[in-house]
Amino acid sequence: MAEADTVGKVIACKAAVCWGAGEPLKIEDVEVAPPRAHEVRIKILYTGICHTDEYTRSGKDSEGAFPVILGHEGGGIVESVGEGVTDVKPGDHVIPLYTAECRECKFCKSGKTNLCGSVRATQGKGLMPDGTSRFTVRGQPILHFMGTSTFSQYTVVADVSVVAVNPTAPLERVCLLGCGITTAWGAVVKQQGVKDSTVAVFGCGCIGLGVINASSLVEASRIIAIDTNPGKEAWARKFGATDFVNPTKLPDGKRIQDYLIEITDGGLDFTFDATGNVDVMRAALEACHKGWGVSTIIGVAAAGKEISTRPFQLITGRTWRGTAFGGVKGRTEIPGLVEDYLNGKMKVDEYVTHQRTLSAINDGFHDMHGGSCIRCVVDMSL
Amino acid sequence: MAEADTVGKVIACKAAVCWGAGEPLKIEDVEVAPPRAHEVRIKILYTGICHTDEYTRSGKDSEGAFPVILGHEGGGIVESVGEGVTDVKPGDHVIPLYTAECRECKFCKSGKTNLCGSVRATQGKGLMPDGTSRFTVRGQPILHFMGTSTFSQYTVVADVSVVAVNPTAPLERVCLLGCGITTAWGAVVKQQGVKDSTVAVFGCGCIGLGVINASSLVEASRIIAIDTNPGKEAWARKFGATDFVNPTKLPDGKRIQDYLIEITDGGLDFTFDATGNVDVMRAALEACHKGWGVSTIIGVAAAGKEISTRPFQLITGRTWRGTAFGGVKGRTEIPGLVEDYLNGKMKVDEYVTHQRTLSAINDGFHDMHGGSCIRCVVDMSL
Repeated sequence: MAEADTVGKVIACKAAVCWGAGEPLKIEDVEVAPPRAHEVRIKILYTGICHTDEYTRSGKDSEGAFPVILGHEGGGIVESVGEGVTDVKPGDHVIPLYTAECRECKFCKSGKTNLCGSVRATQGKGLMPDGTSRFTVRGQPILHFMGTSTFSQYTVVADVSVVAVNPTAPLERVCLLGCGITTAWGAVVKQQGVKDSTVAVFGCGCIGLGVINASSLVEASRIIAIDTNPGKEAWARKFGATDFVNPTKLPDGKRIQDYLIEITDGGLDFTFDATGNVDVMRAALEACHKGWGVSTIIGVAAAGKEISTRPFQLITGRTWRGTAFGGVKGRTEIPGLVEDYLNGKMKVDEYVTHQRTLSAINDGFHDMHGGSCIRCVVDMSL
Repeated sequence: MAEADTVGKVIACKAAVCWGAGEPLKIEDVEVAPPRAHEVRIKILYTGICHTDEYTRSGKDSEGAFPVILGHEGGGIVESVGEGVTDVKPGDHVIPLYTAECRECKFCKSGKTNLCGSVRATQGKGLMPDGTSRFTVRGQPILHFMGTSTFSQYTVVADVSVVAVNPTAPLERVCLLGCGITTAWGAVVKQQGVKDSTVAVFGCGCIGLGVINASSLVEASRIIAIDTNPGKEAWARKFGATDFVNPTKLPDGKRIQDYLIEITDGGLDFTFDATGNVDVMRAALEACHKGWGVSTIIGVAAAGKEISTRPFQLITGRTWRGTAFGGVKGRTEIPGLVEDYLNGKMKVDEYVTHQRTLSAINDGFHDMHGGSCIRCVVDMSL
């Protein structure tokens, strides 16, 4: 195998590097060091572009650090593994996981959350668990991002941050299970009681459509999609929405929460924010039915922004919660989602509206800002 | 029976009337009309005084209306009933319920909430379900309060707003189950998973102590009581707290949420706000453990106040909820709580620090503002 030649050696390849906040990505020759113990080097074949990448690139994330190789929605093939790696082997088709799953920490063992604590501290600093980087450009270390850095033709991840999937699944599609679609799926499916209940979804991007699809899969009785872009109505209905509401077109300038309460006889059983806008998060909570409505925040808000409401909203029985990566434990659950996709149960192909090559990755970022883009998949060949 | 003489007639008795926002209560001769269909007239023997009474009296409740007979934590004996009343009869010992339970509305039937909708609209306006009042003073109608108005020697309530309890229970004690103790009990017991979990309780008044007692009953592993009044430590420990923290005495001016996270290795499994202060509500949420902590708001905030936090707090797995009357369905559940009290399982006597007669009810309000008062019970004889 060609891969064997690279084992234990530095690999020179191309990567999209972000050198500073607000700068476009630049294609660079990057050296990728071999994986150390409990690390995995992956040849990335495809990656999605997600708003979280743009959030850090733009400099809006006050914790963003540079220079960095972004990207966290990838699919690839294991090139080599470090000592002690047992769960994946060279040649495996894999999805890197920005939410690790070590199965040993307090969080993993709790049975209550997917927020593994094993590599969190170093991941947050853009480093591997041993506190160093595997990337250099002209001798300068480059930071990792979210433990995944999928905007490089080769990347190194911790062994707790990667999962092997069915190799017959097209990586240019299932790479999307590394973030958006899985997040949306988990936000709905891991919540009790959505079956036969009413749902409202604020925002019809990838996450919002994923929530609609998942709500439809679990047989919600009514799924109201909300977006200011009228072009999203067709998308929402294709994914399973029963209603579409444009909040900028309400009679008498009515607030969206008041309108929703009116048309649902008291409010929704479940609402989901997939916008990251804190005012929308408030509307999503307040659109919940008194006594039992549950609102879930999925979207990531800009730094420093806060959510607010009158405590009376909670006292009278609404619940405000959130989810990261949909509460999904990646190593345990993503292989099953890939099977669901292969069996035609879960939509994935339908999200891909744009495709780019690595050399045109900045165009992919521009695509994302257009109203017609759900997901842009980047082919990591040039 | 002496009561029989009054059936169908107006009863003249004494009541504490609040004539306007911010005014002290005034003992007045009040005429109490007979109960109409599906109404119950009760001779109130004892009533607690709760912060919600003071909140309305003070004028801080922007929805408060006057003149009004306050009081919602009472115990009494049914004097007579209107047509169609089947669940209570003259002579029954009863507790009026400010949270009705009709068993027929969408809310009652949902199985998800205690927030019965049957009499809510008129109750909020200080009227009986038919839109009128049963109280007059010198010919002037006086408003009802919370559907209960227990600061009158006789009151009239809807039949869905009253429950009969074991007549051997002392009404001067179980009247407190009409609000505070039951609210605290329900907030804890109706939540899954408090057993073997860590709990923090903000505020050690009646509600806070009730939360501590209930947490102890369900065998929480650690119960941290928080109050700015050092005199509350002994109270908290008596009710079952394992720790006491005074947030004004923390090292280096540390924030209470940061301190609690530190001493609990990551935060609490469950926190409860029993203060009504929106800044404390935020601290209570943020003191929750990442991944699974649940914060419950019990205290009622001042009008116009809002709660806030960064959405990241929810995205990372904390849940913000609230409860009214502890989620307890009064007609169904209070008789059992009275039995728990009679069987020595639930503390009630221990809350009573002050006792007054009706003529000294304003002194009872003053008592409440003192740090040494947990509950003042008013004997409705003069």
